[in-house]
Amino acid sequence: MSTDLQKTDRTTISRHDERGSYDREVAYAILDEGLVAHVGLDTGNGVMVIPMTYARLGDDLILHGAVASRWLGSFEKGRPVSVCVTLLDGLVLAQSAFSHSMNYRSVVAFGVARVITDAATKGAAFKALLDHLIPGRWEDSRQPDKKETDATTVLAMPIDEASVKIRSGPPKDAARDLELPYWTGVIPLRLSAGTAIPDPQMKEQRTIPDYAVAYSRSAQSRD
Amino acid sequence: MSTDLQKTDRTTISRHDERGSYDREVAYAILDEGLVAHVGLDTGNGVMVIPMTYARLGDDLILHGAVASRWLGSFEKGRPVSVCVTLLDGLVLAQSAFSHSMNYRSVVAFGVARVITDAATKGAAFKALLDHLIPGRWEDSRQPDKKETDATTVLAMPIDEASVKIRSGPPKDAARDLELPYWTGVIPLRLSAGTAIPDPQMKEQRTIPDYAVAYSRSAQSRD
Repeated sequence: MSTDLQKTDRTTISRHDERGSYDREVAYAILDEGLVAHVGLDTGNGVMVIPMTYARLGDDLILHGAVASRWLGSFEKGRPVSVCVTLLDGLVLAQSAFSHSMNYRSVVAFGVARVITDAATKGAAFKALLDHLIPGRWEDSRQPDKKETDATTVLAMPIDEASVKIRSGPPKDAARDLELPYWTGVIPLRLSAGTAIPDPQMKEQRTIPDYAVAYSRSAQSRD
Repeated sequence: MSTDLQKTDRTTISRHDERGSYDREVAYAILDEGLVAHVGLDTGNGVMVIPMTYARLGDDLILHGAVASRWLGSFEKGRPVSVCVTLLDGLVLAQSAFSHSMNYRSVVAFGVARVITDAATKGAAFKALLDHLIPGRWEDSRQPDKKETDATTVLAMPIDEASVKIRSGPPKDAARDLELPYWTGVIPLRLSAGTAIPDPQMKEQRTIPDYAVAYSRSAQSRD
């Protein structure tokens, strides 16, 4: 059985604590649905936030990049990072400008990211990264060779010191504002996928794989 | 005429520099389309990345939160932050697992965020925040009163030291991989909006405003 996420000074939700959660399964559902993580690190010359693809491998968050990357070059001994994944679910239109909001689900995690050197774990991480992007693709693509594996830095950060924040549902106007005449409600948002566009470099016409068709139909639908 | 963004050590694109840009107009188009920024700051106990709504007001990026917020409490003298806005445009499926990628447009900016105290600028910032969320709504909602204004911390960060990174188009497999038999191409992604859901607390049935209907039809469509 998995344990709750770690509530520390940094992960304590101080504003709207009714939106907070330390439930690991809730965090994992958000991490598994998202496609991009925003990763913050100290460059030595200030904080930097960059977008990265990622995956969850058990209780680790996996990041990767080119060995030649400036920012991944210094993770051999482990390096503290903060990782945030946010899913947008809606615009919340209230009577007062002040009470406007967004519906969202987010995870903010802190941890030390370390370079994975073990070949088996690195292979599992590559598979997890592609399975995360689109399930079914790993088996339907050429898997990494030694040169590609060696050229890629894979980082793992234990998911432990983290918190979830979720807002859902209708606007929450102050009682006195409910007498105002404006339309209020939620405009739902979701990341949707269109029909797959074939690569003009393909040597022949090929059928779009079932998993890609399924992805376009279902991408992050919350209906 | 606006000047280019500032290319510094932190904003120099070291990987895939063909994807980089310092064109201010390109950056502004991305910032104006996005809905959430990921903001990184040094907590004094490590880096933290949090999602925030934002707006662009001329050449400033506007952030806001409750005066009571722990993290916004220390911006009186200005505080360095990194802000990243990322738009996801597609999954890029290549022959090799290694060449899989995403199509995206992102801005990474660095700067000192300062509390705005000037009433007129603060008012303009509130309007910009709501106009950014959904154009047309500011005039169709109750505007902030003094108590709400006083309870809100508004931060402005000059957009100057920043860079853009964009990937678009089909996969780029190595020449030898083009002989492989897999389907390759792009699955387009976009943030789409559904039909507005009326707030059950509204006192009567009201027509969904035109700007909300238009938003649902057009939200971040790149078609």
